[in-house]
Amino acid sequence: MQGIQASEIRELLKVADAPGVISFGGGIPDPTLFPTESMADAMTAILSDPVRGPQALQYSVSEGDPALRAWIAARSTAEGAPCTADNVLITAGAQQGLDFLGRLLIDRGDAILTEWPTYLGALQAFAPNGPRPVELGGGNWMGEGIGDGPAAFAYVVPDFANPTGATMPETARDHLLAVAQTHDFPVIEDNPYGALRFEGIASASLLARDIARCGHVDSSRVMQLGSFSKILSPGLRVGWVIAARSVIDRLVLMKQASDLNAPRLNQLAALALVENGLTAQIDRARDSYGRKRDAMLSALLRHMPPGVSWNRPEGGMFLWLTLPDGTDTTALLPHAIEAGVAYVPGAAFFPNRDVTNCLRLSYSLPAIPEIEEGIARLGRVLGQHHAQNDHHQADG
Amino acid sequence: MQGIQASEIRELLKVADAPGVISFGGGIPDPTLFPTESMADAMTAILSDPVRGPQALQYSVSEGDPALRAWIAARSTAEGAPCTADNVLITAGAQQGLDFLGRLLIDRGDAILTEWPTYLGALQAFAPNGPRPVELGGGNWMGEGIGDGPAAFAYVVPDFANPTGATMPETARDHLLAVAQTHDFPVIEDNPYGALRFEGIASASLLARDIARCGHVDSSRVMQLGSFSKILSPGLRVGWVIAARSVIDRLVLMKQASDLNAPRLNQLAALALVENGLTAQIDRARDSYGRKRDAMLSALLRHMPPGVSWNRPEGGMFLWLTLPDGTDTTALLPHAIEAGVAYVPGAAFFPNRDVTNCLRLSYSLPAIPEIEEGIARLGRVLGQHHAQNDHHQADG
Repeated sequence: MQGIQASEIRELLKVADAPGVISFGGGIPDPTLFPTESMADAMTAILSDPVRGPQALQYSVSEGDPALRAWIAARSTAEGAPCTADNVLITAGAQQGLDFLGRLLIDRGDAILTEWPTYLGALQAFAPNGPRPVELGGGNWMGEGIGDGPAAFAYVVPDFANPTGATMPETARDHLLAVAQTHDFPVIEDNPYGALRFEGIASASLLARDIARCGHVDSSRVMQLGSFSKILSPGLRVGWVIAARSVIDRLVLMKQASDLNAPRLNQLAALALVENGLTAQIDRARDSYGRKRDAMLSALLRHMPPGVSWNRPEGGMFLWLTLPDGTDTTALLPHAIEAGVAYVPGAAFFPNRDVTNCLRLSYSLPAIPEIEEGIARLGRVLGQHHAQNDHHQADG
Repeated sequence: MQGIQASEIRELLKVADAPGVISFGGGIPDPTLFPTESMADAMTAILSDPVRGPQALQYSVSEGDPALRAWIAARSTAEGAPCTADNVLITAGAQQGLDFLGRLLIDRGDAILTEWPTYLGALQAFAPNGPRPVELGGGNWMGEGIGDGPAAFAYVVPDFANPTGATMPETARDHLLAVAQTHDFPVIEDNPYGALRFEGIASASLLARDIARCGHVDSSRVMQLGSFSKILSPGLRVGWVIAARSVIDRLVLMKQASDLNAPRLNQLAALALVENGLTAQIDRARDSYGRKRDAMLSALLRHMPPGVSWNRPEGGMFLWLTLPDGTDTTALLPHAIEAGVAYVPGAAFFPNRDVTNCLRLSYSLPAIPEIEEGIARLGRVLGQHHAQNDHHQADG
């Protein structure tokens, strides 16, 4: 199952490179936003420094660069989740945080509570530990389905979720933390997209809420994952975990055994860039992705056949399309690719792959004219399929 | 047990930074050998290229950069182990290869055959999967101790091993492959130091021998780990696995679930540097480490008390000291640090930590005058301890 899902996405990413195909598939940042010039300047400054140059190319501590950890802790504190560098581990993207937390927290057969749909990469990271995915939410948030056994954790992407683009309401955040308190399980808050808000007011994070509840990050049950991938560069592979020091201490041993340490040069370069203009970089990304979202929403209104619905994400990179019952977006994908447009079938994001009539669209990578054209192509494919379906029904 | 070992090494690395302590502890390359200038040039060239710059900062395929994989395959082919880019996965240092192969191959309780002593980081990488370490070798190489259950694999560092600096004789290499054939288990060949040979003739690798035996890398039972850490820069965190394509295919899925992909910029920079002067870079390192080994051997001859023996490594970074029976090098370490010299107690490298009278010395990091002074300090500490032991024996 895991292999099928993984190869499905991987094949899609390959198709995304094929000439003539407009891809709404991968959750890929727009490379025209990458700060290549300031990155080169930062690298040169670091490497030509007689102290930092050799440090950048040497082994370093498994926790991560102390100054970068302090910067991340200060940013978290400013955003309402006070912590110190000791609460931060640098990872190879937020993905490695998922891998580590899955290995740390899941015993085979444990329930893990996730939204359905949820981030496919999280399901893949957790899968080797043999969890039993249980749907979180569904309008009740009462912890149903956990059963008698222990729940390893709840996993959520509260801001502009992958794959739906949805934001978790404040009441749901508080409810989840209350359920976690009652049933005594940890909560993994995955937050790669939070900075990319186009409109509306940010809600306090689960980590901030839980620290406010319990008084200190070292007593918190929330482990928050972050990353520079969506706001600076995914190619650096610099992400982090913020958690209670007792958790970080165990993750540091795991980091050491897994790959010793994150590349110091990448950490120092990320730090140099965020210290010298993260706000401007984020503003550029928000402006660009916001306009792309608008273009996609406008194109969807013009091109989608009746019976198709979608949401209006307040930030991030994704939008979720729901097609009429009985539609199979996995079966439709080859037709879409033939028509020159790609997406990810929604089933990939459900642990049991039983919801077939949804699909994920990412608007971050294509240019606005491509978004217009790609949605027009998708509209034609869905319209044809709809007509065929009606025809089959008339036949039957 | 794993935690104790890990924190022991980590505390040591911290001590290594303390002023006044000469550290023979960590297996740390000499940073004065790092190509900081050509690295900065390579980074700038990559990042200012309109195609490669954005690519370097973008997500990339989990297998690793195709050109780097092709370069590694060509080098392997030139060294007698023919393979293609499809047989190569780029990892976060060779350490991540150990982590992945441990997860792929070990079922809880499986025997894993390693030399005793062996690389501590390998034991740490394998430990979470619950293996049962069994001693390989011991003069017989007949596969004793595997028992009735399956052996997950044998793990060896044939060239200039960590921690001993020893090189595996040709007969032992052939014998191991024959035993692996008879008992049908895979062999992990960890080869981070092989290029750093000071003297003598290189033996064909286990991978080369097994490909010669079976005819093709895709039929081979050997998985070879390599890395740029010891010949270019450990801070880049670029290593690799060479194996049968069926193995690589499974490892790629693991890479994707673990951290998506290795940083592309680091891969492209490594490729640029090895294409433009790896031989010169390796020659510099061999010359430097060779002179440091000579300095250490000479200092040991002058300063070690009677009853201490050591080997003469033909390459690499390590040398192994054996003290009289009954000596406890872990208990001695605080005295050594007080005297201003650090090493790693040998017990850390034995799965059951029951060999107490050995220690590992690394000569790669300190300058030659420090090596002289550090060995003189160590000689005094060991001499004093020896005298005290005699005294206690006289008392008793």
